[in-house]
Amino acid sequence: MAEDIKTFQGGFAVGFVVSLVLCFVYLGILSAEQQRPLVVPVETYKFKAPKVTEKGGPAASLILKYGVPDRGPLTLNYENHIVGYDQAKKIPIWVAEFITKDHVQGDGDRDKCSFKPDRDKVDNMFSSTLDDYSKSGYDRGHMSPAANHKHSQDAMCDSFFLTNVVPQNSQHNRRYWRDVEAYCRDLTKMYEEVRVITGTLLLPDTAQGATQGSRFVKYEVIGESNVTVPTHLYKIIIVENATETAKTTLFAAAFLLPNEKVDSNIPLITFKVPLSQLESAAGLRFFPRLADAPVGDLCSIDPCKLRGEMAGYSTMGRLPSGFLLIIVVSVLVFLLFKWKEQVEKANKK
Amino acid sequence: MAEDIKTFQGGFAVGFVVSLVLCFVYLGILSAEQQRPLVVPVETYKFKAPKVTEKGGPAASLILKYGVPDRGPLTLNYENHIVGYDQAKKIPIWVAEFITKDHVQGDGDRDKCSFKPDRDKVDNMFSSTLDDYSKSGYDRGHMSPAANHKHSQDAMCDSFFLTNVVPQNSQHNRRYWRDVEAYCRDLTKMYEEVRVITGTLLLPDTAQGATQGSRFVKYEVIGESNVTVPTHLYKIIIVENATETAKTTLFAAAFLLPNEKVDSNIPLITFKVPLSQLESAAGLRFFPRLADAPVGDLCSIDPCKLRGEMAGYSTMGRLPSGFLLIIVVSVLVFLLFKWKEQVEKANKK
Repeated sequence: MAEDIKTFQGGFAVGFVVSLVLCFVYLGILSAEQQRPLVVPVETYKFKAPKVTEKGGPAASLILKYGVPDRGPLTLNYENHIVGYDQAKKIPIWVAEFITKDHVQGDGDRDKCSFKPDRDKVDNMFSSTLDDYSKSGYDRGHMSPAANHKHSQDAMCDSFFLTNVVPQNSQHNRRYWRDVEAYCRDLTKMYEEVRVITGTLLLPDTAQGATQGSRFVKYEVIGESNVTVPTHLYKIIIVENATETAKTTLFAAAFLLPNEKVDSNIPLITFKVPLSQLESAAGLRFFPRLADAPVGDLCSIDPCKLRGEMAGYSTMGRLPSGFLLIIVVSVLVFLLFKWKEQVEKANKK
Repeated sequence: MAEDIKTFQGGFAVGFVVSLVLCFVYLGILSAEQQRPLVVPVETYKFKAPKVTEKGGPAASLILKYGVPDRGPLTLNYENHIVGYDQAKKIPIWVAEFITKDHVQGDGDRDKCSFKPDRDKVDNMFSSTLDDYSKSGYDRGHMSPAANHKHSQDAMCDSFFLTNVVPQNSQHNRRYWRDVEAYCRDLTKMYEEVRVITGTLLLPDTAQGATQGSRFVKYEVIGESNVTVPTHLYKIIIVENATETAKTTLFAAAFLLPNEKVDSNIPLITFKVPLSQLESAAGLRFFPRLADAPVGDLCSIDPCKLRGEMAGYSTMGRLPSGFLLIIVVSVLVFLLFKWKEQVEKANKK
């Protein structure tokens, strides 16, 4: 009789735990589904090209007889990323990428690559050097991450050219920023076409401005080349999403982060900024071909949360905390059985 | 007899003074000539266009499907000046001009012009406003000076667009910088073709770097548009000079000045910097059409001195101090005659 009770109790415990796991998995999926509704775009990407009236035709050729002051090529094209480079600051202004499922997996090995200046594309006088970075205290932070080029060893090594690198706070680079990069890659599981523009900014110290009435921009420069340490980094993500009516629609979001350690508990959405605000600060129109095209808010169709944050509601994220709960409940059930055994033993005596 | 002596003395005095004036004028011309030797150019303008290998052709169109991030038109053309504009900083990067004798004289009246944003060429989100400047404590400093457009009222008023303006230290703008501008105009008397590029820079605080080992760039931003207050301003002057063999040769000089009050006793030459140094800091090749062309040092054929400095050696500058000397000598001669008269009168008694 005591044996039967024990067997029953064991089966009960296993069934209880299995059911609990299934329940949590189901709740996780449901929750994730609810977080990804297909909503209609709510914004329009306004792009007004400036009306440049060229009235100074003949004068122009006289004034610029020795050429137009040259700020470098508009774009530096690599196998899998494109750089808008700042010859004065010796860092990229923006780096653009096209990411798909296929790009983010493969045998690409970062250990086969090394950081170096791109002597072919940038003249020495406009380039940073390895010496500038060494002992600076800053990481050589990839703008287009190495892991986005796993499909091609060449493309991966391209990302190690210093044209794709900025002096980055190491604690930021190795933690929060790494998670933001992973988030971009995760999006390829949901959307076939993911495009990311990663860039650098120099912004005023708002805390100082609040107290003094004047606002200042202050940033460090490193090495003999005076390589600019950006105060902020941004990522603009734009995805194509086929809606129910098979009409492709664009959804975008821009995230602006300080170039310093970011507490991993801060939700990604905290750093979301309006695209137009970022454009004004960067002095760039990021998507000039999208004149007046409807572009929805990415965070209206996607949770815009990092892996760590997903714990609260998604299958992937919830599992760890779900398992924790299961273990606690299992231990409680186990202790309950042990207590019952003790009670039964005491009764037999 | 006494009358003859007096007449002689009067003639002597007049002759003495006239001779003195001629002598000073001659010396002045000689001195100026000596300061402007026709020397062979000693430098070569090195321009190596970067070898941009476009290996990412098909990828490029995929990556930048929505257009190349647009940093604005390369140049904003006006009737008599051209602007390279920085949409992020809301100030010009460089302003180019072609100046001749004819440009710097005429009926152009600055009172008929007013400062305003150029709504035709620059979108609101990339433009400064009058409000940004008001109460900022900074002058709206012309890069291409109004006085360089006296030949045309339209051209002069063009120079009042905020695309030609930076927040400038008022004591600098109204004194030393005004003299530097006048120097550029004076060059048109010597050289038929004078071209000037005026620009803005943000440079590290060297004093701070010397003590701390780290170097920082710090600058103020004004107004709601966060208009950048440049730490430094530069002027690059390039002139064409026909040598004795009728071969046109180019001579250039670059002057880099802080955006703060500059003591008027400091010679202009103090601020001369190598063009390549300025190019590295600005991230610009100023004269891309002059690949490997010989460009001489302007200050080897011109004194490179402001009007105030010229007092020491040139006709124009020496005349005031020369006249002062003439007056002193004349008074002394006059007193000598008076003294002689008194002596003669005393002898007659």
